[in-house]
Amino acid sequence: MESLSAHQVLVMLLSFGLLLGVARILGEIAQRLHQPAVLGELLAGVLLGPTVLGWFSPTTNAFLFPLHGPNALALSAITTLAVVLFLLVAGMEVDLSILWKQGRVAPKVSMMGILVPFVAGFGAAWWQPDLLGREGMADPFLFALFFATALSISALPVIAKTLMDLGLYRSDLGMVVVGAAIVNDLIGWIIFAFILGLMGGQASASIPNMILLTLGFALFVLSLGRWLIHRAMPFVQAYTRWPGGELSFALILALLGAAFTEWIGIHAIFGSFLVGVAIGDSSHLRERTRVIIDQFVSFIFAPVFFAAIGLQVNFLTHFDPVLTAAVLAIATLCKLLGGYLGARWGGMPVRDSWAVGFAMNARGAMEIILGLLALQAGLIGQRLFVALVIMAIVTSIMSGPVMRVIIRHASKRRLVDLLHSRLVVRGMKAYNRQDAVRELCVAACEVTGQDCDLLHAAVWEREESLPTGLGHGLAVPHARIPGLARPVVVLGLSEKGLDFDAPDGKAAQVVVLLLSPAEDAGVQLAVLAELAHIFRDERMAQRLLDTRSYTDLMAQLKTAAQQISL
Amino acid sequence: MESLSAHQVLVMLLSFGLLLGVARILGEIAQRLHQPAVLGELLAGVLLGPTVLGWFSPTTNAFLFPLHGPNALALSAITTLAVVLFLLVAGMEVDLSILWKQGRVAPKVSMMGILVPFVAGFGAAWWQPDLLGREGMADPFLFALFFATALSISALPVIAKTLMDLGLYRSDLGMVVVGAAIVNDLIGWIIFAFILGLMGGQASASIPNMILLTLGFALFVLSLGRWLIHRAMPFVQAYTRWPGGELSFALILALLGAAFTEWIGIHAIFGSFLVGVAIGDSSHLRERTRVIIDQFVSFIFAPVFFAAIGLQVNFLTHFDPVLTAAVLAIATLCKLLGGYLGARWGGMPVRDSWAVGFAMNARGAMEIILGLLALQAGLIGQRLFVALVIMAIVTSIMSGPVMRVIIRHASKRRLVDLLHSRLVVRGMKAYNRQDAVRELCVAACEVTGQDCDLLHAAVWEREESLPTGLGHGLAVPHARIPGLARPVVVLGLSEKGLDFDAPDGKAAQVVVLLLSPAEDAGVQLAVLAELAHIFRDERMAQRLLDTRSYTDLMAQLKTAAQQISL
Repeated sequence: MESLSAHQVLVMLLSFGLLLGVARILGEIAQRLHQPAVLGELLAGVLLGPTVLGWFSPTTNAFLFPLHGPNALALSAITTLAVVLFLLVAGMEVDLSILWKQGRVAPKVSMMGILVPFVAGFGAAWWQPDLLGREGMADPFLFALFFATALSISALPVIAKTLMDLGLYRSDLGMVVVGAAIVNDLIGWIIFAFILGLMGGQASASIPNMILLTLGFALFVLSLGRWLIHRAMPFVQAYTRWPGGELSFALILALLGAAFTEWIGIHAIFGSFLVGVAIGDSSHLRERTRVIIDQFVSFIFAPVFFAAIGLQVNFLTHFDPVLTAAVLAIATLCKLLGGYLGARWGGMPVRDSWAVGFAMNARGAMEIILGLLALQAGLIGQRLFVALVIMAIVTSIMSGPVMRVIIRHASKRRLVDLLHSRLVVRGMKAYNRQDAVRELCVAACEVTGQDCDLLHAAVWEREESLPTGLGHGLAVPHARIPGLARPVVVLGLSEKGLDFDAPDGKAAQVVVLLLSPAEDAGVQLAVLAELAHIFRDERMAQRLLDTRSYTDLMAQLKTAAQQISL
Repeated sequence: MESLSAHQVLVMLLSFGLLLGVARILGEIAQRLHQPAVLGELLAGVLLGPTVLGWFSPTTNAFLFPLHGPNALALSAITTLAVVLFLLVAGMEVDLSILWKQGRVAPKVSMMGILVPFVAGFGAAWWQPDLLGREGMADPFLFALFFATALSISALPVIAKTLMDLGLYRSDLGMVVVGAAIVNDLIGWIIFAFILGLMGGQASASIPNMILLTLGFALFVLSLGRWLIHRAMPFVQAYTRWPGGELSFALILALLGAAFTEWIGIHAIFGSFLVGVAIGDSSHLRERTRVIIDQFVSFIFAPVFFAAIGLQVNFLTHFDPVLTAAVLAIATLCKLLGGYLGARWGGMPVRDSWAVGFAMNARGAMEIILGLLALQAGLIGQRLFVALVIMAIVTSIMSGPVMRVIIRHASKRRLVDLLHSRLVVRGMKAYNRQDAVRELCVAACEVTGQDCDLLHAAVWEREESLPTGLGHGLAVPHARIPGLARPVVVLGLSEKGLDFDAPDGKAAQVVVLLLSPAEDAGVQLAVLAELAHIFRDERMAQRLLDTRSYTDLMAQLKTAAQQISL
C-alpha cells in the first residue's frame, strides 16, 4: 500500500508540530488579551502560510506546506478529521432543551439571516457580475446564485468556537445562534449542491432526494438514533473497558455519521454534529468521557484545523482591494441586518439582537470550503476566492471582539485571575491573628493605595466577630470595602501557622485576605467557594508552602482549582 | 492547496470509522478472552484488508482501502501520527528509576537479543539465500545483512502494548524488556540505514554521523531536555489554559522530537518515545493530562494503527509456506534463545527469562515498516515480505498469551469481575440483619453448591461480633470460607433498608455478601476497599436501587469504580 516516504513523514511531523505550536501560543495570547482563541489560531496559519512566511522565505514555506502532493493531502486528511471531531464536540455541548426553548426565535433568525444576504447578493451579482469577480465564461445566473449562497451561509465551527471561547455557547443567546446557524448552513449547502448539479448539467433531479435524505437523517438521529444511543450507552459502559469504550463509541458514530452526510452530498460536519447532539443528550454520558474528548479536540485538533485555513491562499498576489472591500461590505451589512431583524422579530432585546447579527456574520471555514469547491469547479477565479477568504477571516475575527463589547460579558472572577506576584507574602512575621490580618492589609494597601488603618479595622471587625479559619490549614479573613474599585486578594504563607480557630483545630499556614467592593456580592462568595474547593485536599497548604516561586504557586493553585470541572 | 475530494473524504471517514469500530470490538473481545487487545486489533486489519474482505469482495476492499492515491496516503498519515503518539504514551509510562535499576540486566538482554538472531540470520541467509527469498539481482552480502537485521529488531510499540494490556508494563520485568527493546531497535535501525546507504552506493560515510546524532539526541533529551521540560511545566500550567496547555505542550514536543529522529534517519517513533520518557519523568506532570492523552491514544490512535498493519498485504497471493515457516522458525528460536540467555546472564529466574524471550520476540509494526522499506528499495520481493509480515504478526500474537501462561499473571480481583446476574438479589425479603445474611447465603449456595447452613453460620458469626454496616446505605457481611474455590459476591438490594448498625445510622439498602477462600487474604481487602470507594458518594445506594436491569447496575458500579484512577 502506498505510504508516505521518510522525507514526507519528516515534513509532516515538523509542519504539524510547528502549526500546532504557533496556533496554541497565539491562541493563548489572544485569550490573555480577552479575545477568542480562534483569532490567534487563524493568525498562526497566515503567519506560517504563503502570506507571511511565504513572503520572507518561499523555500521554507514550500518545504513545510507544499501546495500539491502527499503532504498537502496529509494535511487535508488531518484537518478534515479535525473539523469532523470538532463538530462532534460542538454537538455534544448543545443542550436540546435550551434549543427547543429557542424554537420560536432560531427559525426567524435563520430565515432572515439567509433571506437578506441571499436577495441582496443575488441582486448585486446579477447587476455587477464583473465587478464582483465573475470569470469570463461562467454563466451569469449560476454565478449570481453562487454569490448569493456564499453570502448566506455562516460558519458553524467558527461560531461554535467563538461562543465557547466567550463562555456563551450554552447560553440562550448561544443556542439561538447555533440553532439558526445549523438551519442556515444546511440550506446553504443544499443550494450549493444544486448549483454544482446545474453546472455539471446532471443530477439536478437528485436535489429533492438530497433534501429528503438530509431531513430524514436529521430526524432519525435526533429521535430514534438518540434513543438507541441512550439505551446502548449502559451496555458500552458495562461491557467494555472504561472510559475507552465510551470514547471509541462516540468517535466511531461520529465518523460514520459524517461519512453518511458526505455521501448525501452535504458536508461531513453535519453528520458528526448531529451525532454529537444525540450523544450529548444522553444522561448516561459520563462527564469524564466528555472531558477527554473535549480537551483533546479543543486543544489539539481545533487549533490545527483553524490554523490550516490561513495556509490555503496567498493573500497578496491575488488581492483585489476593491473587490474585497465590496464583498466584505455587502456580506457584513446583509448578514448583520438579517440576523438583527430575525432576532428582533423573535422578540429579543436590541443589544442581544446585534450580538446575534455579529455572531451569524462569522463565515470562517465554511466559506473557504465553499469557495474552494467553486474555484475547483471553475465557477469563480482566484481574485474572488481571495476576497471570499479574506471576508471569511475578517468576519470571523470581528465577531468575537464585537460580541464581547456588545454583551459586556463579565469575565469570571477566579482566584488565579485576582492573584499577583506582589500580593503574595511569604514567611509571614505575625504571631497572632490580629497581626496577621494587619500584615496582609499592609501588603494590600501598597497596591490599592487605600488607608491601611481603615482597611484593617474593617477586616478585623469581621474577623473578631467570627474567626475565619476554614480548616486544612486555611484561613480567609475578608471584608467588603466601600469604594474599592476591584477585588483584591493577598495570599500569606506562614511556616509556623497561626491560630484562626479552625474547626479542625489546625493552625492556618495559608492566610488569604479577600477584599471585595461593597456593591459586588458575588465575587466574595465565588472566591470563598473556590478556596474551599482547592483546600478540600488537606495536603494543599503544605504543597503551597513547599513552592519556591510565584510560578510554582500559581501552577499548584490553578491545577487544583481546575479539577472542579471533572 | 491540494485537498481531498468529496468522494475521498467520504471514503476516508467511512474506512476509518469501520477500521476503528472493528478494531475496538475485536480488541474488547480479545480482552474478554484474557488476551491482549492488540491481538484483536491486528485481526481487524486482516479481516478488513485484502486477505479476507478482499477475497470475499475485492471491489468493497478496493473502495474502502485503495492501494494507491490520496486515501492510501491519508491512511499512512494517520497511522504515522498514531504510532508517534502511541510511543509518546509508552515513553510517558516508562519509570526511569526502574529502568536504571534494571540497568544491569537490560543491556545483556539487548545484546544477546541482537547477537543470537543476527549471527544465525546472517549465516542462514548467506548459506541459503534463495530459499530465504532473495531476489535475483540483490547483492548476497547486503541481503544477508538485511535478513540478519530483520530477525534482530523487536517491535517496541507491540511490546509496549502487550505489556500494558497484561498490566506488566511498569513491572521490573516490563522495564527490562522495554529497556532492551529500545537499545535493540536503535541498533537495528542504524544497521538498516547503513544497508540502505550501501545499496545507494552513497552516504555510507554518514553512518558514524548518524550514530553520533542518535546518541547525542538521546543523551540531550534524557538529561538537559528532561530538566528543561521539568522547569517549563509549571510555567505552562500557570500561564496557559489547563489542562489544554500541558496537553499541547506534550504533543508539540513529541511531534518535533519525532521529526528530529526522522531527520537523523532513524524512525520517527524514537523521538516521540524519548520525549515521552522526559515528560513522564517530571513530577509536575499532572495525572489528568496523562489520563487524557493516554485514553485518547490507547483507545483511538493505537487501535487504528495496529489494525492498519493487517491492511498492508494480501496474505494469500504471495504466501510461500516453506519460506514463511523457515523465517518464523529461525526468527522465533533465535530471539527466544537470545532473550532467555540475556535474562539468565543478567540473573533473572528461569520462568521470567522465558517471558522476556517471548516478549522480545514480538516484531509487530517495526518489522513490517522495515520490510516495506526493503521491498520499496528492491532488496527483497513480495514473497519474503509476506513471510516477514506473517512472522511479525504471529510473533506479536503469540507473545501476549504465552507470557500470560508463563507468568501466570493473577487477574486483578475486581468487584465487577466477580459479580454475575444470578448473584444479584432485588427486593430482598428480609426484615433484619440475620435474615438478610441468610437470604444472600441461599443465593450464594445455589451457585457454589456449598452447605447453606455452614455458610450462614460462618458469616453470621463474623457479623454478630462486629456489624458490617459501613454507612451511606451499604453493608458488607463477609467471611473467609475454607475450601471455597474462588471468591463469591452476592449483591442484595432492599428498598426499605436493613439495620446493620452503620456509623451514620442509615439503614443498609445495598447489602453485599462477600465470601472469599480462607487462604486468599488479598481479595477480601481488595473488594472491601473498592466498595468503600464506590460508596464514598452517598447517593450511590439510591442510584443502584433506581437501576432496572443488570446492565444498568453494572454500568453504575463500573463507572463509579473506575474513577479511582483519576
